[in-house]
Amino acid sequence: MYKKIFFTLLVFSTSIMMQAQENLGFGQRKEIISPEIHADNSVTFRLLAPLADSVSVTGDFAQGHNKMTKDADGVWSFTTRTLPSELYTYAFTANGLQMNDPNNVHYRRDVASTLNVLLVGGGQADIYKVNNVPHGTVAKRWYESPGNKTDRRITIYTPPGYESGNTSYPVLYLLHGMGGDEEAWPTLGRATQIIDNLIAEGKAKPMIIVMPNGNVAQEAAPGESSEGFYKPTFRLPNTMDGKYEETFIDIINFVDKNYRTVRNKSGRAIAGLSMGGFHSFHISRYYPNSFDYVGLFSAAIMPNENAKSSVYKNIEDTLLKQKQNGYKLYWIGIGKDDFLYQANTDFRKKLDGINFKYAYRESEGGHTWRNWRVYLSEFLPLLFNQ
Amino acid sequence: MYKKIFFTLLVFSTSIMMQAQENLGFGQRKEIISPEIHADNSVTFRLLAPLADSVSVTGDFAQGHNKMTKDADGVWSFTTRTLPSELYTYAFTANGLQMNDPNNVHYRRDVASTLNVLLVGGGQADIYKVNNVPHGTVAKRWYESPGNKTDRRITIYTPPGYESGNTSYPVLYLLHGMGGDEEAWPTLGRATQIIDNLIAEGKAKPMIIVMPNGNVAQEAAPGESSEGFYKPTFRLPNTMDGKYEETFIDIINFVDKNYRTVRNKSGRAIAGLSMGGFHSFHISRYYPNSFDYVGLFSAAIMPNENAKSSVYKNIEDTLLKQKQNGYKLYWIGIGKDDFLYQANTDFRKKLDGINFKYAYRESEGGHTWRNWRVYLSEFLPLLFNQ
Repeated sequence: MYKKIFFTLLVFSTSIMMQAQENLGFGQRKEIISPEIHADNSVTFRLLAPLADSVSVTGDFAQGHNKMTKDADGVWSFTTRTLPSELYTYAFTANGLQMNDPNNVHYRRDVASTLNVLLVGGGQADIYKVNNVPHGTVAKRWYESPGNKTDRRITIYTPPGYESGNTSYPVLYLLHGMGGDEEAWPTLGRATQIIDNLIAEGKAKPMIIVMPNGNVAQEAAPGESSEGFYKPTFRLPNTMDGKYEETFIDIINFVDKNYRTVRNKSGRAIAGLSMGGFHSFHISRYYPNSFDYVGLFSAAIMPNENAKSSVYKNIEDTLLKQKQNGYKLYWIGIGKDDFLYQANTDFRKKLDGINFKYAYRESEGGHTWRNWRVYLSEFLPLLFNQ
Repeated sequence: MYKKIFFTLLVFSTSIMMQAQENLGFGQRKEIISPEIHADNSVTFRLLAPLADSVSVTGDFAQGHNKMTKDADGVWSFTTRTLPSELYTYAFTANGLQMNDPNNVHYRRDVASTLNVLLVGGGQADIYKVNNVPHGTVAKRWYESPGNKTDRRITIYTPPGYESGNTSYPVLYLLHGMGGDEEAWPTLGRATQIIDNLIAEGKAKPMIIVMPNGNVAQEAAPGESSEGFYKPTFRLPNTMDGKYEETFIDIINFVDKNYRTVRNKSGRAIAGLSMGGFHSFHISRYYPNSFDYVGLFSAAIMPNENAKSSVYKNIEDTLLKQKQNGYKLYWIGIGKDDFLYQANTDFRKKLDGINFKYAYRESEGGHTWRNWRVYLSEFLPLLFNQ
């Protein structure tokens, strides 16, 4: 009898797999591999679509639609040139309709788009991989925000050894951009892999990384709050009106109360991309003696002139206060093609005008996660060294 | 100048949204809402696909393909009957090709299939929702498994108040089925929402829930280990050959060392679905004085007669030992249509034969997450009460 039951389980598992094949809308049991990363770092994408008239693949590995060709079995394919090491996103378009790759279960959501991902190693992206190194813990928690009269969700990375030791660690507050949330840096940004790898290589100090949700109108990422499974939008109310900056102290208090932290500015860094750069700039001024390390990645620097919050008043005064209090690193990174390039140039002139020191990193490219991952990889080794 | 920069950011965000629309392969800026859950709990699915000849929606809300109809704008739609409260999965098929809903960013992966999800409230599924209640912490950690000579990833839920208190908590070890991993119960199983809600209602004791990866050939879920972004398979080596049961002590040791736990059998429960029921059965026998609470959900009870591991020897002897040591709850749940129904009936006869007491729950339906979420919801309130 026991043998029979075990056999039944095998038959069941085989039927599940057959069903999965049939779900492709095709009777054949052909195993499709997509994407296939070749030894030379070219990539082949494949889609079984015998009834389609045209199929193409789009992604950040190349411009525009890359036409795929169909073989006798109805499998469409396209092979790229040799690709630089990077984490890429892509999608198919079959008969004018965009769709995900049914043979790739790995996705990233960016605002309301969900795209497949693939990682080409052998270079920059090796630091984005999960490698055989000690891994920190990634926790999704909720903290009380009296300033927002609610509990809010937050992602917190603690370094390898945190739970079993007694050491206090410095903290990086790492902020997302418009349309992001507490899941953006851990998924699109590969922040937890990057820090694991840098710590393992001895290139970054062990630290806690706190990744809050910068949309104060939102308790948690879409699907993770009582609002349920709704469709995310790019712009939310109260993202850049001062409320987040004003209530950021709730986050610092929560972290200092619940974790073994270095509770002064030498143990605190704040950095963010785009809107998160805006927040980092204003928060570091608004609490001018709280952060020794500031990182502005493609930052949307300046507020609307009509912004009413006191956060945005007296910008120069608070910068001078911050300068007077002292800090160790003020890091500005921007891509040459970024639509915020000129704004960052103007901002640097402003800093120069008051002799406010900063490190400046100008990269190729624009307003992309590709750049923000690079900036984070370069920024982390500079933290908490002094 | 500041106003200009802010304006530029708004233009940029608008252009991102336009681009997202264009990615649908369609020039029109029509906002598609899908799925739309109506007040009467019927659901409308929509897909913008003006060039398609046929579109249908499949899912566990109804049998087979549900044909959608096209309106003048090229939007296909289908409205269900009033649906019972449940967490549903679905996909579209356009011109014979299965695809996800581009207007729904909420997905669940089950082995190698990634399907959209929707939640219909007003009944059973309310306990699967994130509600306005205190939330526990969900951590992804790595533990050392000397028995497997590697570090392995694990999901750990700690109840609200854990981090700020000093109380010791009982622990439920909650095991996934074949093709699952440490992400199955938190995603498909809604385990962390269920326990948050039951604790808030006073229906379950605050507890730690440990969700390990039962595939010892796998360090972590697909995409979360150094194996990178590969395509998952249903069956992995060494899933039911004794190795997991033998090395389960590594998990218990890790949990007892790293958390404030009740370190005896009155503070330990173990439960699992399908293969996880198999594991729970064998682990609770193999460590016969370790668990006062055992839950077998649609369990694949018996090993292959040829299984060589000593874990599977002397089954009756170890059951008698377990009985002699005493336990508080032995809970068996199975659906009437489950392919393992007969196996569970035979198993119960075996238990009856040695006067081994158990609670029995027979439900409608088969081998589905729908049943396992219900079983978990019913099992949790029975734990750690005595």
